[in-house]
Formats: sequence, structure tokens, C-alpha cells
Amino acid sequence: MAYELYYWPSIQGRGEFVRLALEAADVPYIDVARQPKGINIMLRLMEDGSMLAPPFAPPFLHADGLWIAQTANILMFLGARHGLAPSGEAGKLWANQLQLTMADFVTEIHDTHHPISSNLYYEEQMPEAKRRTKVFLEERAPKFLGYFERIFSRKGSSGWLAGAAMTYPDLSLFQIVSGLTYAFPNAMGRLLPAYPSVKQLHRQVEEIPRVAAYLSSPRRVPFCEEGIFRHYPELDLT
Amino acid sequence: MAYELYYWPSIQGRGEFVRLALEAADVPYIDVARQPKGINIMLRLMEDGSMLAPPFAPPFLHADGLWIAQTANILMFLGARHGLAPSGEAGKLWANQLQLTMADFVTEIHDTHHPISSNLYYEEQMPEAKRRTKVFLEERAPKFLGYFERIFSRKGSSGWLAGAAMTYPDLSLFQIVSGLTYAFPNAMGRLLPAYPSVKQLHRQVEEIPRVAAYLSSPRRVPFCEEGIFRHYPELDLT
Repeated sequence: MAYELYYWPSIQGRGEFVRLALEAADVPYIDVARQPKGINIMLRLMEDGSMLAPPFAPPFLHADGLWIAQTANILMFLGARHGLAPSGEAGKLWANQLQLTMADFVTEIHDTHHPISSNLYYEEQMPEAKRRTKVFLEERAPKFLGYFERIFSRKGSSGWLAGAAMTYPDLSLFQIVSGLTYAFPNAMGRLLPAYPSVKQLHRQVEEIPRVAAYLSSPRRVPFCEEGIFRHYPELDLT
Repeated sequence: MAYELYYWPSIQGRGEFVRLALEAADVPYIDVARQPKGINIMLRLMEDGSMLAPPFAPPFLHADGLWIAQTANILMFLGARHGLAPSGEAGKLWANQLQLTMADFVTEIHDTHHPISSNLYYEEQMPEAKRRTKVFLEERAPKFLGYFERIFSRKGSSGWLAGAAMTYPDLSLFQIVSGLTYAFPNAMGRLLPAYPSVKQLHRQVEEIPRVAAYLSSPRRVPFCEEGIFRHYPELDLT
């Protein structure tokens, strides 16, 4: 039976990290909330207290009778089952460690436009957003990107983050670089050349046939100003 | 050989979730940075590019030749090895899912006093902190606490979060409730009675002999205004 992915239908958001893994591993799945009336099914499930392993929020996955929520947790599961993770214990822990560091990065990216509350509109927290984004672009983005660059520059690096082949953290780093480039084209135009291996990883992932096919399909929701990566020109460098 | 925990020596911070697990499972460990010159050893390791599985930030653990960073990742490892996690795949995923939801909660708690940047002093972001804390106490804390309360209120609940016995997410929820009560005594005095099972879980964990012994030992760093949970009276309810 096909896996069922539950996520908000109109944004990439955190669900996109899961979609990328499902697509790259060629796993059959239904993007439930994007089917007719699917959003109602998702909302009903979230209100239904009887669910096994109830999620705090989407995304969540229904796979072989298991209900799994939290992006990094879903990816760990998919990675192990579908050839997107290293095989040994040390490699699995390392992949999860990388993914959790990216989860922290993603939260900081989101909070550039919502530093006070996700329940308020961006327009209600613009001065704070400008202040937070300035520090983010000057200090935090370089710190995270520099960290991943250093991993690639270690002796014997394969050009992938974890082991000799592509694993799910590579897909997530691709998504982060894509999203940052959408949100902050000016800042990333100046930043990214300092991280050539990160840039190269982005290109490598983009060229994987299954990923390329997905990105050009209607299954890929476009970036927009409702998700994590938002292009607000007033927040970008000039 | 004893495990080595690496974390900032003067705060509980995210390292405290790991300390609680090590103490509750009676695992011998060295809190390296709290030893003489230990902080230099930790900093040198973090700068040393040759480290296997280099951490983005503390805490990290050296255990049986493995280097493991990211709090939830360390806890997953310790849980499986030292009887602090459910045994089956579904249970392990559920424990990790709970822990990751708590990691999100902890980030939001931290950001109440640092909504703009961790690199600025609290005093440099007080108006923003007041605004963010107000929404946090009115909307986010009740949402997270309500989520955990609903888990306990499911049919057949054992009074522990994952399965029939205490597991590492219980220790983490204990720490969060302790920390919130330290940081926001007025707000928590009003909030907590609405979440009786969460309150009961806190009491249960506190009374576990190994946990109680740890909490009253000098190994427990006191709460203070340098960590995640900070008591700034102007942020609390009056």
C-alpha cells in the first residue's frame, strides 16, 4: 500500500523535506491533503484523540501501519527503509545529527520573517523581522553554511554529507540552499561563492534524474510567501 | 570506559536533558567541561576539523568510540542502550517524535528572552522579548502543554509518555516543567492546574530515587539567567 503523507497542501514548508525523500527514493505515496477533500481528512485526523502517535503538527506519515510525525523522525524512518541513509549505527546517528542541525537552521530561517509569533501576520512584526534578518544574514547563515562547508572539506570527503553516496541530509541541504536563494537572492549571491562545496552539493542533487523530474512536475509546490522561505525584498540585502 | 559529556559548564541548557538521562540510567560519565581545564579540551575539540561527526554546537557525547551531537540524537542513543526507550520500532519512533516536539518547545522558550539574536544581550532586545513572551504564555505554552496532557488522557495511558514505564521523553518533560516554573512562576501557577497529568508526571519523575539524588547533588547546576529558562520578572505575568 502506498504511504500517505499529510501536510499543508499549498506550501512546501517542512513537508517538502519529506516529499523530496519520497521522490528521490521512488517510494509510492499519496499527498493526502492535496487530494479532493484531503485537507478535511488531515484536519479530522489531527483532532481525533484516538490516533496512535498523535502529531503536534504536520507533516506526518502513515506507512505500513505506523504513524510518524516530526520531519527528522520521518526522514530517519524513510532513510533506513529506502536506501537513503548510511547502513551502520554511527552513520545513522551522523545522518540524524546533520538533519537536526538543519532543523535548527530551518527554524531560524522561518523566524527571520516571524520573530514574534507565527500567529501574527508578517506585517505585524516587520521592524522585528528586519532586525532579526540582519543578524541572521550577517552571523547565523554564514555560521551554518560554514559548518556544512567544513564537513565537505574533510579529508576523504565523497562530496556527499554522510558516507559515499547521497543520503537524506543531502536532499535537505539542497532544499535549504534552494529556499535561501529564493528568499534572499542578493544576500545569497554574495554569500554562496564562499561555500563552493555546498554550492556543488546543491547542483549534484538537482541533477539527480528523479529529483530533476520531481522539481519540474506539478507535484513540486512553488515557493511562495506563505512558507518557510519567503521573498520579502525589504529583508534581503540591497 | 565512562562516557564523556561535553557541554557548557555553568548552565543547565540543552546539556541538562542529557545529564538527566545519564543520571536516571545510572550510566558512568564525565562532565568534561566541568573538570579542571575541561572547557579548553571541549573548545579545542570543536575547533579541530578532524573530529568524526563534528558537532555544530554542544552538547555532544563520546561513547564507545562514537561521537554524537544534537540533544535528541544523544537521547535516542542513550535510550536504546540503557533502558530508557521503548523496545520496538514504533515505540522508538514515538519517543523520538515526542523528544523533537519538546526540542521545538525548548527553542520557543529560549526565544522568549532572545527573539532577535542569541548574540545580543537580553537587555538589547527587551521590547521584542516582552512581545514574544506575551504570545508565548497566552498561546504557545498552552498549546504544547495541552498536547502532552492529551497524550496522558488517552485510553489505557500508563501515566508515562511512551509505553508502560519511564522513558527519556518523560525526563525531558520533567525538565521543561521545572524550567518553566522557575522562569515564569506566576504564569505557571495559573497554567499548570489545567494540565493535571503533566503536573503528575513532573512529580513522578522528581520522586525517582536516582533523579532525586541527582537533583540534590552538586552535579545539578542551578537554574540561572544564562540558560534557556530565565527568570526575568518583567516577562512573567504579574
